[in-house]
Order: sequence, then C-alpha cells, then structure tokens
Amino acid sequence: MKETPSLIDSEVFLAFSTYATVVVLKMMLMSPMTAYFRFTRKCFANMEDTGMAKTPEDKKRMLRVDPDVERVRRCHQNDLENIIPFVVIGLLYTLTGPDLSTALLHFRVFVGSRLFHTVAYVLPLPQPSRGLAWMVGMGATFSMAYRVLNGLK
Amino acid sequence: MKETPSLIDSEVFLAFSTYATVVVLKMMLMSPMTAYFRFTRKCFANMEDTGMAKTPEDKKRMLRVDPDVERVRRCHQNDLENIIPFVVIGLLYTLTGPDLSTALLHFRVFVGSRLFHTVAYVLPLPQPSRGLAWMVGMGATFSMAYRVLNGLK
Amino acid sequence: MKETPSLIDSEVFLAFSTYATVVVLKMMLMSPMTAYFRFTRKCFANMEDTGMAKTPEDKKRMLRVDPDVERVRRCHQNDLENIIPFVVIGLLYTLTGPDLSTALLHFRVFVGSRLFHTVAYVLPLPQPSRGLAWMVGMGATFSMAYRVLNGLK
Repeated sequence: MKETPSLIDSEVFLAFSTYATVVVLKMMLMSPMTAYFRFTRKCFANMEDTGMAKTPEDKKRMLRVDPDVERVRRCHQNDLENIIPFVVIGLLYTLTGPDLSTALLHFRVFVGSRLFHTVAYVLPLPQPSRGLAWMVGMGATFSMAYRVLNGLK
Repeated sequence: MKETPSLIDSEVFLAFSTYATVVVLKMMLMSPMTAYFRFTRKCFANMEDTGMAKTPEDKKRMLRVDPDVERVRRCHQNDLENIIPFVVIGLLYTLTGPDLSTALLHFRVFVGSRLFHTVAYVLPLPQPSRGLAWMVGMGATFSMAYRVLNGLK
Repeated sequence: MKETPSLIDSEVFLAFSTYATVVVLKMMLMSPMTAYFRFTRKCFANMEDTGMAKTPEDKKRMLRVDPDVERVRRCHQNDLENIIPFVVIGLLYTLTGPDLSTALLHFRVFVGSRLFHTVAYVLPLPQPSRGLAWMVGMGATFSMAYRVLNGLK
C-alpha cells in the first residue's frame, strides 16, 4: 500500500479550501445586501421588522414586495442552487487527486463565473451575460462531477 | 495507535462519493428544467430575460408567474432542503466507519426516494406518492444522523 | 514531516461533527413544521395535496398563501442561507487544526444563535432579537472563514 498523502498538506486541497471559502463568503454577502435594499426601499416581509414606521398604516405599507429586493433574493437563490453543488462536488473532486493546474482551472473558472454572475444579475447587465455566466459555472461543476464518477468507480 | 485507513481508499467513501454526486447532479438538472419551462411558457422573472418579445407590451406580459414553472421551482427548493442535509450528514456518517452493506442501503434508499420524488412532483402523481418519497428520504438521513450522534460521542 | 493526525480521531472534528449534525437536523425539522402549518391552516401549493377537501371549490380555496406558513418557510430559507455556509466553512476550519476550546466556542455560539433565531422567527419575538441572532451566527462563520483564508495560505 502506498503512503496516503495527508488531505491537509495537499496543494489541491489548499486551493479548494481557499476558493470554496471565497465563493461561499460571496454567497453570504447577499444577505446583508438584501437587508440593505429592504431598509433603503422600506420593504419588509415581517410585521415585527417595520419598527421604523410610526403609524400602523405605515407599518402595513412596508409589508410589500419590491422589485429590487426580489432581484437580490433571486440572485441569492441562484447562488444556493449553484455554489453548494460546486462545494460538494469540488470536495469529492479534490479527493480524486487531480493535477494542481487542472484543479485550479476548474476552481478559478467557477469562482470567476459566479462573481460575474452576481454583477450581471444585480446591475443588471443585458442578456446573455447572466445566462452565459450561469452556464460556465454549471460546466465547471459538471466537468468535476464527470471525473468523480469516472475516477472513483 | 491503530493504523488510520485512508479516506480515499475506503469502499464506503467511494460509494458515498458516487451516490452524492448522482443526487447532486439530479438537483442541478432542475435549473435547466426551470429554464426550459420558462422559455416554452414564455414566463420570466427579469425584464432583461424577455429579449424574444418584440414590443414593450409583450415584454411586460412575459413577466408573470406560471404554475408549471412554479411547480419545478418548488421541486428544486425541496431538493435543496433535503439533498444538502443528506450530503452533509452522509459524509459525517461515512467517517464513522459503517458496514458497507448498511451504508449502501442508506445511500440507495435515499437516492431512489429522491428520484421518485422528482417524478411524483413534476408529472404530478397523485398523493401520497410525493409525501411518502419525501418521508423515506428524511428517514434515511435521520437514521444516518442517529449513528453520527451516537457513534462519534 | 510531522505525523498527520487522523481526521476521525481529532477531538475538534468530533465536536464539529456533533454540532453540524444538530444544526442540520434543526434545519430539517422546518419541513415537518411547514407541513404541520399547511395541514392545520388548510393551505397548500399543489392541487394534488388538497385531498382532504370534498368539493372542487374547497380544493381551489386551499390553494392559497397563509402568513403563518410563509413565516416558517422564510425561517427555513434563512437556515439554508446561513447553516450551509457554516457547515462548509466549519469543516474547512476544523481541518486547519484550531484549539479545541476556540473551535467549541465558534460551534456553540453559532448553534446557539440559530436555535434562538428559530424561536425569535416563529413566535415571533420583537426585533432586534431575530436580527441580532442572525448577526451573531454570521459573525461566527466569518471568524472561521478568516482563519481558513489566513491559516491555509
């Protein structure tokens, strides 16, 4: 049996760890961004959040749906649907022992595509910028999943 | 200190890796399915996505909620709420060193239940098919969580 | 090269494993809670779920949005947005080899803040209880992410 390399000492794992943390932090920042839009647009989902209003009528008026808030929330939801699969499949991919340069290519393409996706969604940029960013990210994850399913069986 | 088995060489881990990737890929495929229904139903959430419309009135008419699109999105959301806990708890469960046959039973029951859940949700099949599929998947995850909490303490 | 400690034997990993499982189980319990409110409020999202109704008119009347159901669903969504980043970053943090006491502090503060967050959201408690619980949880995850990005590079 050949010596097992330590997970923690592996360069691919260190790279995965950094890129996964960066992209998960990016996802988490959508929460304060939603809060920012909720406060500036005075648009809330819960009655107890409308403390800034003075009259009961004002409170009720703040319980509404705002297009800017919904846009940020859709971007956050899209992050959940794409970044979490990347983290799961990326971790399994890392454990298949890929080349460092191939792994870095996958991680960088994915993280870059998601940063651009957020900019394209929130501004918004005209299509197909957001659609292409989404597809590139999906492609990077699918490519890693292909190696996991082939390399591990 | 007894020899630590390598995570990557473990048969249970290989099985987990394959089943987790399969079920995460299934979850990811809900995104293109949502896109397919959005394009065929001409129903979008963002103004910049309505490029296929010719007049501003057509664009506005495409910013609507469609029951088929919402059904696929609810199925996707249910996947997020169930498949991600399976992946997290399944990974920790794998590290407790379960028997291969017991582990395979858990993984197969979960993945099978979620494949059936998607079919039952999207077609849709009459209840209680979807409800039972959801419960069986929850049961498999709870059973693994029980072992994690007992076996690791 | 110093001896690599086994992941599974590490006390920090055992602690992470237990706290992550507890907080993921808490998140999963939002699903039965949503089902409970849907049945008691007779409020469903799918036509096939309204089997308890006797007439087609009753069925249609059950396809509605209920404020109590929506509150539980928002709480579940907030869990997805916060607990999954904790699990991902917490696992990477565990692999950086932190002190047991520092790690326990992070895990306990996070899990405690999310348990309180759920109580504050579902009852609901007056603000800023829910807002503070959310911020404390975010803070614990950011603090672990800081160590991952610094300790691993």
